[in-house]
Amino acid sequence: MELALELARFNARGSDGGPFGAVIVHEGKVVGEGSNRVTTTMDPTAHAEIVALRDAAKNLGRFDLRGCVLYTSCEPCPMCLAAVYWARVDRVVYAATQDEAAAAGFDDAFLYEEFAKPMASRSLVCTREAGDGEDPFALWLANPNKVPY
Amino acid sequence: MELALELARFNARGSDGGPFGAVIVHEGKVVGEGSNRVTTTMDPTAHAEIVALRDAAKNLGRFDLRGCVLYTSCEPCPMCLAAVYWARVDRVVYAATQDEAAAAGFDDAFLYEEFAKPMASRSLVCTREAGDGEDPFALWLANPNKVPY
Repeated sequence: MELALELARFNARGSDGGPFGAVIVHEGKVVGEGSNRVTTTMDPTAHAEIVALRDAAKNLGRFDLRGCVLYTSCEPCPMCLAAVYWARVDRVVYAATQDEAAAAGFDDAFLYEEFAKPMASRSLVCTREAGDGEDPFALWLANPNKVPY
Repeated sequence: MELALELARFNARGSDGGPFGAVIVHEGKVVGEGSNRVTTTMDPTAHAEIVALRDAAKNLGRFDLRGCVLYTSCEPCPMCLAAVYWARVDRVVYAATQDEAAAAGFDDAFLYEEFAKPMASRSLVCTREAGDGEDPFALWLANPNKVPY
């Protein structure tokens, strides 16, 4: 946790990205690190946790991070929390809360409120438009060469 | 939408990743494309929408995708939906639903159920461990050189 906070503090003092840091630990060793890189890499998804998950997956050579723990300077936003689920990380340890992030100007608490609403009540408009032609899921289920995850 | 579905079908027939495709449109032009790349790039965050958002941000040279629309072969999972909010995309158009994704073996519907629960009731254990030392958010708020986003 101290390393995650130090990464967050480094960004908070400079101009390399938002004040967030994250570390992935596997069997007592740091296997991934990340700090926020949204503004420096022009990547809206480059939150510290996402950067750390990608770093750990690359270093371990697998997309399934079972057996890993995520230490993060702040409670993960919904994007990062869902990424943790997809990566099958065992558990999460965080320092600051989503409300503290909100007080510093970040939308984490707002996003959690949005996710608790039904789709039609959210501020982001999502509409369905069924396409013509073959259903990708039917093709997937019938595909003997698929790599499940 | 046809391009998003064609990207999804291409993956569904082969072994390059899950059966999902996404396209970002700005002022009537495609500015970003993505298909699922989780298993081929060993990146648990490489969902089609995330890949497309990164591609569009890179092509437009900005992390704020206001004025863009996301077309996706399937209703975005919570990770991708939150990424859409962070990227400030105007709206989302999707073909298949999260329940159809669940029927094809993907956890989207499960994740939405998890997000609707309070933290303590979720299957993923998240614990708080406040760190010692300076608060990164206090440093951020006091930093005159920060780049907000």
